[in-house]
Amino acid sequence: MKILAIDTSNQIMTVALTDDEGVVVEHTVNIKRNHSIQLMPAIEGIMKEAQWSPKDLTRIVVAKGPGSYTGVRIGVTVAKTLAFSLDIELVGVSSLKVLAANGSQIDGSYCVPIFDARRGNIYTGLYQYQNGELMQVEKDTHIASLKWAAYLENLEGPIQLLGPDRLKHMEVFKDMMKNDSDLPASQQYVRASVLAELGKAMAPVNKHLFEPEYLKLTEAEQNWIEEHPDFIKGGGWVEKL
Amino acid sequence: MKILAIDTSNQIMTVALTDDEGVVVEHTVNIKRNHSIQLMPAIEGIMKEAQWSPKDLTRIVVAKGPGSYTGVRIGVTVAKTLAFSLDIELVGVSSLKVLAANGSQIDGSYCVPIFDARRGNIYTGLYQYQNGELMQVEKDTHIASLKWAAYLENLEGPIQLLGPDRLKHMEVFKDMMKNDSDLPASQQYVRASVLAELGKAMAPVNKHLFEPEYLKLTEAEQNWIEEHPDFIKGGGWVEKL
Repeated sequence: MKILAIDTSNQIMTVALTDDEGVVVEHTVNIKRNHSIQLMPAIEGIMKEAQWSPKDLTRIVVAKGPGSYTGVRIGVTVAKTLAFSLDIELVGVSSLKVLAANGSQIDGSYCVPIFDARRGNIYTGLYQYQNGELMQVEKDTHIASLKWAAYLENLEGPIQLLGPDRLKHMEVFKDMMKNDSDLPASQQYVRASVLAELGKAMAPVNKHLFEPEYLKLTEAEQNWIEEHPDFIKGGGWVEKL
Repeated sequence: MKILAIDTSNQIMTVALTDDEGVVVEHTVNIKRNHSIQLMPAIEGIMKEAQWSPKDLTRIVVAKGPGSYTGVRIGVTVAKTLAFSLDIELVGVSSLKVLAANGSQIDGSYCVPIFDARRGNIYTGLYQYQNGELMQVEKDTHIASLKWAAYLENLEGPIQLLGPDRLKHMEVFKDMMKNDSDLPASQQYVRASVLAELGKAMAPVNKHLFEPEYLKLTEAEQNWIEEHPDFIKGGGWVEKL
């Protein structure tokens, strides 16, 4: 299987090509910049380096969120467009799971990915390596970091907090970070080869119905709903307006 | 500290730029190709992407071997040349340690990097995470894989065999690979951001005296020594000839 994997859901942009043996090319950029300008040239660059043509690809794997609304949208849109135009499989993987998979494979240890979601909130989830496989223990969620810290403190077993954003909530998580092994910085950022590996084992989605998972509405959407209390999600809102 | 890290000691070519916060750009190519042609353009590419100029760099970190003679030589030569011409620090890190650092941080578990060295031989070493730091337990060595497997079998504690080349010696290590957790393929290849992290904590070397660590002479050198039994390493051999 020849995979193109794309993750632009946060500040990091990472793209990779993998085949059955593993990584062929991986390119990761951790610079605050516009993914919409960088992504296509980056894909073109790694394809050229691997001497692959678009028709060689058999599957696109994309990080489907949560994360930055714009970032997630760029990645998912490019992935859908490529999968549709090349008529190949599309798989979406939780952006949090991609980060969680960087955790050390310590049996019984929890991998807890952290994306900052501003105003004391985070996107997070609870994962665990069980017999060498990364299992989801709790659903990905948007939550106040204080609340999440309280929840984590009641868990048994060591906790691995993951991602550069964990440092923005250091004060809240400091007890956890003191007691548990902190992974080196080089293991704290997402990589598209990890994403490809997770997506390789999953069933492809319907390209047309596939949507990002933001986990939280944008402020504009939230305000709109508050102003339209009779709005029922998914139910003919065009007519109502 | 702004680091350029280079590892071309085996089939994989990986380069990265890191600063005090971690990775800025990382580029990894796992294709059988000529590193001498690919390396400089790859460095130029990531420098351009990060918008760094050569004078921004404060340190070069290079994987100093063992590995492919040619590969090691290319990396070390480029690193020495850049460090000398930019007048910045140079640090060499064992290529095996870079791979060992991919192991999961499981206390008491051994990280055993494997590079194939042909004819049933390997380059390997014994590392262990102790309190979150990667410690070298045994010196890097060139050894028959059978002999190494026998040695490893007597160790207590789980063993993590690392690197794609471990699969070439699967028959020899199969008992170990069956019992112990095998890391996913995405953790099995070296990455320059890991190299940079290891090299950040080390003291710089003398740029002029710095040499690769091949751990084993080339066949031509070995033959020459056999034909010149009075040769004493390091002692005025030019005169003797």
